[in-house]
Amino acid sequence: MRYEECTIEGRNAVLEAFRSGKTIDRLFVLEGCKDGPVQAIVKEAKKGDTIINFVKKERLDQISGSGKHQGVVAYAAAYEYAEVEDILNAAKEKGEDPFLFILDGIEDPHNLGAIIRTANLAGAHGVIIPKRRAAGLTATVAKTSAGALNYTPVAKVTNLTATMEELKKQGIWFVCAAMDGEVMYKQNLTGPIGLVIGNEGEGVSRLVRETCDFAAGIPMKGNIDSLNASVAAGVLAYEIVRQRMNAVK
Amino acid sequence: MRYEECTIEGRNAVLEAFRSGKTIDRLFVLEGCKDGPVQAIVKEAKKGDTIINFVKKERLDQISGSGKHQGVVAYAAAYEYAEVEDILNAAKEKGEDPFLFILDGIEDPHNLGAIIRTANLAGAHGVIIPKRRAAGLTATVAKTSAGALNYTPVAKVTNLTATMEELKKQGIWFVCAAMDGEVMYKQNLTGPIGLVIGNEGEGVSRLVRETCDFAAGIPMKGNIDSLNASVAAGVLAYEIVRQRMNAVK
Repeated sequence: MRYEECTIEGRNAVLEAFRSGKTIDRLFVLEGCKDGPVQAIVKEAKKGDTIINFVKKERLDQISGSGKHQGVVAYAAAYEYAEVEDILNAAKEKGEDPFLFILDGIEDPHNLGAIIRTANLAGAHGVIIPKRRAAGLTATVAKTSAGALNYTPVAKVTNLTATMEELKKQGIWFVCAAMDGEVMYKQNLTGPIGLVIGNEGEGVSRLVRETCDFAAGIPMKGNIDSLNASVAAGVLAYEIVRQRMNAVK
Repeated sequence: MRYEECTIEGRNAVLEAFRSGKTIDRLFVLEGCKDGPVQAIVKEAKKGDTIINFVKKERLDQISGSGKHQGVVAYAAAYEYAEVEDILNAAKEKGEDPFLFILDGIEDPHNLGAIIRTANLAGAHGVIIPKRRAAGLTATVAKTSAGALNYTPVAKVTNLTATMEELKKQGIWFVCAAMDGEVMYKQNLTGPIGLVIGNEGEGVSRLVRETCDFAAGIPMKGNIDSLNASVAAGVLAYEIVRQRMNAVK
């Protein structure tokens, strides 16, 4: 996988980035700026389904590292994204039931990195993240993944529930972490499975939860509400690993 | 539990902090500064077993928030530390076998906070950390513990192995996470137990490892070396939870 700089600034540089096929996560454009070059950039961004934010000059100056943004700053993916198909193929090549992580809005790049690291070590075939309201593959994520980003494919999709519905047709079951779910040790988590982890503060969103086939609870024996998102992902992933190891015997 | 400011600066403030019985994790003193007030502070620090660092003026200016340090800056514990005895008593009061976390040099406050959070939710009775080369209970730790610091006692000891030897006499078994240990699912992790988690980069130190009764391995099915420390702690803790729940049946 190819590592890239994260912030691209200036009209030529940003336009060139789009035209060379780089994955741009997010584009910031100066509010009210509508001249030719900027319109060309916005047009490219729309083709690639990049999220566009129109912001005031103060905000753009703040985002810019060099201060020479000429009205446009782009966040490029530090790593290339994979396709969902690549993840399924990875499982097929290994002759294993697919094991995916679906991250429903993880916002903290440290959590995202730690979860990709866990996905790699738990033997998952890939991670699916949504395009909006979530951390993308930045340099921080790459670093906290401890190298896992080089091995574990991450796909970014526009609509998580649509992707899940599509995967269900291919025989994958979805389980989400939920406090009111039946305790995970008593559930059957073997077979083709997608493990759904919710946002740090709000948990799994309603639509995604309704798309899940079942909800698994981590026993909570303490006084507070919930585990850190990357810890919860690890605990559930390794319950899946345990059950898969037992099933093989 | 009482929440405190983390940095205390200036001679009077620091001396007063010591005399009022505040827990001071670490004292920074200007190199070569040996006048009366500073000597009085150093004397207090030695009484309380505080770690003292003699540093150059540039370093002290950097540590200082206000710049008005007068040659001394102290890091105070954000929360009060408990005694190991308090942790054992907490188990006794609940009528449960003791379940402790021993953190052998966790340096990242985010990891420490996440582990205390996990300890609380896994039903552990407390966490033991060493005085040196480890993060203390700072405001960042309190925040990332998501409130768990208000419930789960944390004890700080001078010598981890000595404390472990003492606890062994009281019937506690120690298990550490180790890649070459037998897979955790096949080990008996019930009964009075201390779960030992090593440093982020270096793992469990030699002496601590030799003091452990056994080593448990988390299955590693990927391409990279190790899980994030707080994720590994969560995965092992919940294997203990699973076995304890089975043992009750």
